[in-house]
Amino acid sequence: MTPRPLALSLGDPAGVGPEIVTKAWRALRGAPSPFMVVGDALVLRAAPGGAAPVRVVSGPDEAARVFAEALPVLDLPAAGPIVAGQPSAAAAPAIVRWIETAAGLALSGAVGGVVTAPIAKAPLYEAGFQFPGHTEFLAELTAAGGQDGARGPVMMLTAADLRVALATIHEPLARVSSLLTIEGIVNAGLVTAQALRRDFGIAAPRLAVAGLNPHAGESGSIGREEVEIVEPAVRALRDLGVEAFGPKPADSLFHAEARTTYDAVLCLYHDQALIPVKMLDFWGGVNVTLGLPIVRTSPDHGTGFDIAGRGIAREDSLIAAIRLAGEIAARRG
Amino acid sequence: MTPRPLALSLGDPAGVGPEIVTKAWRALRGAPSPFMVVGDALVLRAAPGGAAPVRVVSGPDEAARVFAEALPVLDLPAAGPIVAGQPSAAAAPAIVRWIETAAGLALSGAVGGVVTAPIAKAPLYEAGFQFPGHTEFLAELTAAGGQDGARGPVMMLTAADLRVALATIHEPLARVSSLLTIEGIVNAGLVTAQALRRDFGIAAPRLAVAGLNPHAGESGSIGREEVEIVEPAVRALRDLGVEAFGPKPADSLFHAEARTTYDAVLCLYHDQALIPVKMLDFWGGVNVTLGLPIVRTSPDHGTGFDIAGRGIAREDSLIAAIRLAGEIAARRG
Repeated sequence: MTPRPLALSLGDPAGVGPEIVTKAWRALRGAPSPFMVVGDALVLRAAPGGAAPVRVVSGPDEAARVFAEALPVLDLPAAGPIVAGQPSAAAAPAIVRWIETAAGLALSGAVGGVVTAPIAKAPLYEAGFQFPGHTEFLAELTAAGGQDGARGPVMMLTAADLRVALATIHEPLARVSSLLTIEGIVNAGLVTAQALRRDFGIAAPRLAVAGLNPHAGESGSIGREEVEIVEPAVRALRDLGVEAFGPKPADSLFHAEARTTYDAVLCLYHDQALIPVKMLDFWGGVNVTLGLPIVRTSPDHGTGFDIAGRGIAREDSLIAAIRLAGEIAARRG
Repeated sequence: MTPRPLALSLGDPAGVGPEIVTKAWRALRGAPSPFMVVGDALVLRAAPGGAAPVRVVSGPDEAARVFAEALPVLDLPAAGPIVAGQPSAAAAPAIVRWIETAAGLALSGAVGGVVTAPIAKAPLYEAGFQFPGHTEFLAELTAAGGQDGARGPVMMLTAADLRVALATIHEPLARVSSLLTIEGIVNAGLVTAQALRRDFGIAAPRLAVAGLNPHAGESGSIGREEVEIVEPAVRALRDLGVEAFGPKPADSLFHAEARTTYDAVLCLYHDQALIPVKMLDFWGGVNVTLGLPIVRTSPDHGTGFDIAGRGIAREDSLIAAIRLAGEIAARRG
């Protein structure tokens, strides 16, 4: 049986989305896991890098049937004109509708999951969008959906053999300490452990928890957060049945030998997680949202307005995101 | 002509120092750049991993002559007993004297530079030592020594093809923002650029400066430090003739392609620098002190009391530190 397709929201049509989606279809058209773009067929047909055969479809079933021959799109046209590299608030309502539609299809079970191409905040905010990003918007859209266990969203990034989950994301570094709580770390740890079991097929996941300070604080002599927040959180996670350990000095957590000791690291701030991810695979990292009722992945890069329309955008990360969403959807069944 | 030997202070005799020094001599005894231990001959003779022929010498000249046949040591015995894995404040006066003597020999020109094996703060503090570590102590010991250009100490770490210099070191993460100043970053940048020219032989060094916040603050929307401190510092460095650029998002600075765009990165906090260093070479990183009148390197690990005396300590980092000190000493002439 062919698996259900994934829904791929096109993201900002003035960014690299149309180009990398087209390139990803070329790379994956022979693969067993089809996807359907939720976006604008005209924009896709004009994507740089040579026209792909774009087929407007009525839904996931038709998308699955045509996928090997044409790039299927559920066509919800954006208000134009769409010019590569020039984002416009006029396209914002369509961008939002693509995400809402993809999420709705996933919640209904018609598609196996959602992959989101990059959006930019500025043009969406101009049009009244009020979420910090995709992740929070999808959490809101799926808030009523049922789910067992701890609730996210928790952001995970994967690259090569590394998985990192984040306790804080796009926060000024000086604020990170004040945002860390025992409850927050415990919840992120529970969501991560549950996802490792359910979505990644790891029966007894091992979760390393990073420290915040140099040398993980050296028993409180270089900062107290480890003693007062992270250690109690790790103990609580262990009491709750999660094989967690730490806080570990972050500089000794990411070399090849260390990476064999855990299935994921819970990081406390953005660059602690992103430096290792981007060192291991600068082009192919994937962002996965854990703890939602739907499967959702995305590339780990932005809209690339500076290179949009030139045919030089790399599709590696989107392809990896599509593959991972397909694998997770297959595991959730 | 044989180069002047290096002086190698033994560090805490209850740590891995005696073992890795002995192993390093075995690896380097045939190399052109000799070293002389400043330490305790008895402790060296008892180092695990098979006895090395230890020769008590009267100074650098004799050390250079015997180096191929025996491990030369300027013998300044520590108060005993010395037990591997059990640091004692009784040894502290000798540990301090070893460092002072090595620094004095380097200042006088009798040795080409200093390599320091690891010390631990706790036993030294019990005995009245008042410096945060080796680096600050050596800065004090060499304060009267003449030097052209900007004055350090600035900590640099090297591993594989990466060099990182640090604007702050062992500080709680929550304090880093308040410790950053335009003047501090400019001085660290000047010291680093000068060292790249003088000590690393790079005629026109390129210095990348890392941002503090996620995405280097996204033009001030995720933290203001880039706009208010780092950007002005980079401009000032350029006005002063340093080919500096940034602030750059830290997560995009350390993959292989990015590493070809600079000769060193000026990092703003410990783990921003140490995560990449230890990912690239967990065992062989080297700590170099820039901006002192003497050459000084050290391994980038600690005393390893937990594994001392068992013969399993790795000498990679110490060997790399000795080699680098020899190279820098040769360049300074």
